[in-house]
Amino acid sequence: MATIETALTRLLGIQHPILLAPMGSAAGGKLASAVTHAGGLGMIGSGYASEAAIRKELAEAGNARVGIGFILWALDRNPSALDLALDAKPAAVMLSFGDPSPYTARIKAAGCKIVCQVQTLEQARQAASVGADVIIAQGRDAGGHSGMTRGTIGLVPAVVDAVGSIPVVAAGGIADGRGLAAALSLGAAGVSMGTRFTATRESMWDQAMKQKAVASGGDQTAQTRVFDIVRAAPWPAIYPGRALRNDFFDQWHGREEALERQQKDAEADYLAGPADDFARRVVWAGESVDLVRDIPSAREVIERIVDEAASVLQRGATLVRTG
Amino acid sequence: MATIETALTRLLGIQHPILLAPMGSAAGGKLASAVTHAGGLGMIGSGYASEAAIRKELAEAGNARVGIGFILWALDRNPSALDLALDAKPAAVMLSFGDPSPYTARIKAAGCKIVCQVQTLEQARQAASVGADVIIAQGRDAGGHSGMTRGTIGLVPAVVDAVGSIPVVAAGGIADGRGLAAALSLGAAGVSMGTRFTATRESMWDQAMKQKAVASGGDQTAQTRVFDIVRAAPWPAIYPGRALRNDFFDQWHGREEALERQQKDAEADYLAGPADDFARRVVWAGESVDLVRDIPSAREVIERIVDEAASVLQRGATLVRTG
Repeated sequence: MATIETALTRLLGIQHPILLAPMGSAAGGKLASAVTHAGGLGMIGSGYASEAAIRKELAEAGNARVGIGFILWALDRNPSALDLALDAKPAAVMLSFGDPSPYTARIKAAGCKIVCQVQTLEQARQAASVGADVIIAQGRDAGGHSGMTRGTIGLVPAVVDAVGSIPVVAAGGIADGRGLAAALSLGAAGVSMGTRFTATRESMWDQAMKQKAVASGGDQTAQTRVFDIVRAAPWPAIYPGRALRNDFFDQWHGREEALERQQKDAEADYLAGPADDFARRVVWAGESVDLVRDIPSAREVIERIVDEAASVLQRGATLVRTG
Repeated sequence: MATIETALTRLLGIQHPILLAPMGSAAGGKLASAVTHAGGLGMIGSGYASEAAIRKELAEAGNARVGIGFILWALDRNPSALDLALDAKPAAVMLSFGDPSPYTARIKAAGCKIVCQVQTLEQARQAASVGADVIIAQGRDAGGHSGMTRGTIGLVPAVVDAVGSIPVVAAGGIADGRGLAAALSLGAAGVSMGTRFTATRESMWDQAMKQKAVASGGDQTAQTRVFDIVRAAPWPAIYPGRALRNDFFDQWHGREEALERQQKDAEADYLAGPADDFARRVVWAGESVDLVRDIPSAREVIERIVDEAASVLQRGATLVRTG
């Protein structure tokens, strides 16, 4: 198969410029190790800086070279989780959704690469100034949590222009080889993908949820806080989560203050049905869910995407007429 | 200079796969003819289906081969404006923000190309079913009015997959050659650009507004209805406009019902200051405004973008290793 060499593959010592987004609900050690073994970089989600999750998923990853992702506002509440992560000598630590500056020196001192995920151009400049080795520019096109201010297609080239030689990775709305080729065209050195990997054989999602993603489209998604509020997950309001709209969404979206007041009752109701009651339960999904049409292995996803991106890039050059 | 040949350039008989977005405030006959003379396709904005605007801007365009854009909900109120447009034998009629089906037969009968701009995958399927010759997939990354549901990077490949052989044009968040190359990678056959062209010599914007765009960044933009409400422009709520956040935005965004109740007073206040009081007055801007750094001619914009896209496409192919 083809490979695509970029500043990201060289910096991280990986074969393909594809990172697994460290999604708490899906990116366990099994999926992260599968991504790494297929030539990308697997990233384990640490949930809300949960030491138990880090231990469990690192064990599950075995000896695969993986990274670990942190939600910064959660790490701020339990900073010792970073020590546990660094003890495992991960390939990279990813920091997102908050201020990375309290942690970068420790990560650097441990000889570990710092991957900062940002949602605005201003955050990108800050990440560059505090020593990020890689900057992920995440648009609100993404599934799960992201910012509201910027979309991927405009954010990526603006960040590339702002951060000098630091490799930039595009995240949000990318699930196939066309998206990888587009990200490289925008000046990125790779992509981070979540939604595409949720519906893989190695994802922690249960089969019904994977099938729901396959059956759904991007028009059905929206950014919302209601699924965080009902689960009492204290996400800052500037970071809503993109999910499939459903009955629960229709009932509460736009009525967040009322939901906060009735959280206990609403949560009991939310949890009352079966786990696959997707009229109530959240299914995180990015806009790229249109492009998720099967449940292959992570290796198959990566090989398919790299092969498609390679042929898109080669065909792109043939459109040009000089003279 | 280089050229890039696609299904769009062949269908429309143009040299470069670049359309001017028919922005009422900026895309008059002067800018549209400049875009056409530089090898793209200029599109005149018809405002709210204003026959006076169509007559004036067509005269301004002289004998340049241009298209005319309509806001569908406005055309529904004054359908005879379409007859006036078709009498001028435009290269294309663009229909956006509503149901195109009442108009497609007349446009086709006049021998004119139908360009439907859509904001969701569902609308794209509808446009394909009513005979669109070209479909513009516009993400909410765009400046001015757009939808809220979809971003450009995820919408474009989904639309490409859904509409068969109809050429798809990407709109929203694109202002340079990287964006054009990315759009082509996503499967589009070209781009439609607004924000980049607002800050050109031929744009109808006054100099202070062009300079404001040059000095501003995408982080400062937001989708909002407040500038429509204060001007009593009856845009459907599903189509907010992306503009620079300013004092007026801060005062009213999130308080739309109150603004509607006080519209007369608010409008008087809004209009009280000088025209370049951008703390009050709207400056429409897409997220690509980060990439708008000067006020060149439309020809220079087009040549620069095509040359940059050509080198991005050629460089992209060199990243691939096969073996």
